[in-house]
Amino acid sequence: MSPFRIVFISTSTAETAERWAEPLRAALPEDELYFEVDAVSPDDVDVVLTAAPASGALAPFTRLKLIQSLWMGVETLVTDPTLPRDVPLARMIDPSMTRAMVETVAAHALNAHLRLDDLARQQREARWKMLRNPTTDARTVGILGMGELGRAVAEMLLTLGFRVRGWSRTPKEIEGVDSFAGAERLPEFLAGSEILVVLLPLTPQTAGMIDAAFLARLPDGAVLINLARGGLVDDEALLGALDSGRLRHAVLDVFNVEPLPREHRYWRHARVTVTPHMAALTNPHTAAAFVAENLRRLRTGERLLGLVDRTRGY
Amino acid sequence: MSPFRIVFISTSTAETAERWAEPLRAALPEDELYFEVDAVSPDDVDVVLTAAPASGALAPFTRLKLIQSLWMGVETLVTDPTLPRDVPLARMIDPSMTRAMVETVAAHALNAHLRLDDLARQQREARWKMLRNPTTDARTVGILGMGELGRAVAEMLLTLGFRVRGWSRTPKEIEGVDSFAGAERLPEFLAGSEILVVLLPLTPQTAGMIDAAFLARLPDGAVLINLARGGLVDDEALLGALDSGRLRHAVLDVFNVEPLPREHRYWRHARVTVTPHMAALTNPHTAAAFVAENLRRLRTGERLLGLVDRTRGY
Repeated sequence: MSPFRIVFISTSTAETAERWAEPLRAALPEDELYFEVDAVSPDDVDVVLTAAPASGALAPFTRLKLIQSLWMGVETLVTDPTLPRDVPLARMIDPSMTRAMVETVAAHALNAHLRLDDLARQQREARWKMLRNPTTDARTVGILGMGELGRAVAEMLLTLGFRVRGWSRTPKEIEGVDSFAGAERLPEFLAGSEILVVLLPLTPQTAGMIDAAFLARLPDGAVLINLARGGLVDDEALLGALDSGRLRHAVLDVFNVEPLPREHRYWRHARVTVTPHMAALTNPHTAAAFVAENLRRLRTGERLLGLVDRTRGY
Repeated sequence: MSPFRIVFISTSTAETAERWAEPLRAALPEDELYFEVDAVSPDDVDVVLTAAPASGALAPFTRLKLIQSLWMGVETLVTDPTLPRDVPLARMIDPSMTRAMVETVAAHALNAHLRLDDLARQQREARWKMLRNPTTDARTVGILGMGELGRAVAEMLLTLGFRVRGWSRTPKEIEGVDSFAGAERLPEFLAGSEILVVLLPLTPQTAGMIDAAFLARLPDGAVLINLARGGLVDDEALLGALDSGRLRHAVLDVFNVEPLPREHRYWRHARVTVTPHMAALTNPHTAAAFVAENLRRLRTGERLLGLVDRTRGY
């Protein structure tokens, strides 16, 4: 059994050799890992590990057997026209990341449910006014995107007692979840989502889909929680819906431009919670185990996990 | 079976006849309910329903069979020296209230875990800085007070994946919870509580117990969540621990003086979340069902629910 030659290509300050080298070496003791692109001839490389490399960075690798993303979101890789065709591309499915996402959604959904945003506004005015909230069984959370993450999130929201509805492109059956599929059922789904959790991948079909018409479908006073990709949102439309009070609050972890520019209105908007794209960070230790499992499958010819449909975009 | 004569004595603006009359009438169709104290001779009254009446308000009722509190916290009733002796006093155990408390603790524990307080401070400075949080299985929440509420809260925190420890006056065994009992084990309990949830009743023993020595036992950067009674806390000690940065944040739903005075430092403190005593409001509809059950027990001579030990104070 010959070792794989694996090149790690770092992405910005988030996915660096410094964070990944030790966990990957521990998980892949038999393989040859390279953390400098120049350290090996591109023709000899079997696997590239990367998140969002510069366009063209993967073009020199002519004999790849697998491109393994370090992230769940693969929109940068999929839209790179120089990416070697016919090479399997797998996204990351990291149990720690899924768990972090579940925790983050649970926190923000409960905060929206308990109106902690309104209470924070009252605190700023030193205003003592009790709010009477229903319990979670009288509150509906909508999940836009019912993939691996959506399912895990739905399960936790059900445990917390919420009514849960999910929307996906194609029909999905999940126990306890009111399921809506396809564009034609989106308005009905949105109309009942008091709290909307966005977990969709960014594709040409989803880019900018959270626009004025979309937001107008949500019930009055709804709260939007976007933990997926900033590119899904038309920022002017969202700011308009928040300014008018139609939407009560937005929790945004992702933005069209990241880091969010200092002068952006989101930072100072009383109805916006900004977090710095950290809802679901990959944990190199658990992610390395996923990489090892996918390499084992590659070696034995079993079906790869997290395989991306490049036409679909995720 | 003769009907009970029941007098409802309102408390401030929270527990009024307006909120309670209809649910109580629906739950107790056979009994005689009076919402004006003058409407019936005190000697004919069997049951008083009240929350925190003025001292002496219950003294005229000479033939009471039961004083049923509308609240779980009975410190006002217990400490009233004019309260008829030898009459059973029961506190409220309302499933909706317990549930509201569970939801509130879940929200604030997750917020503390995810450091949403630090992220809010970063947002005020338009500062983009990712924080790397562990998942909940690496975070310990301590619950101070393991009665009905403490147990329900512990169960939800375990479901969210937290490590959970509980402290109580007398030993309690709860699966999955690391249990500490008695004053001598309090320091050890506190030393491991990164997030401390306070659910103790207010008694002469617990009044002011959250003082400088108590707070000094908590780990650096701990978060305090007090949803029980303001009288448990020495406010100057707490402000000192927050000012010095020893404690990272405090979530306070209850205060020594309520409503919290406009000029109080808590309102404006960057490390304090103020909510207006609403973590667990009694729901008259579900609470009325509890009252009906206790009256049924009173009639048949079965053991009453929520019976208060007046010496112990809860």
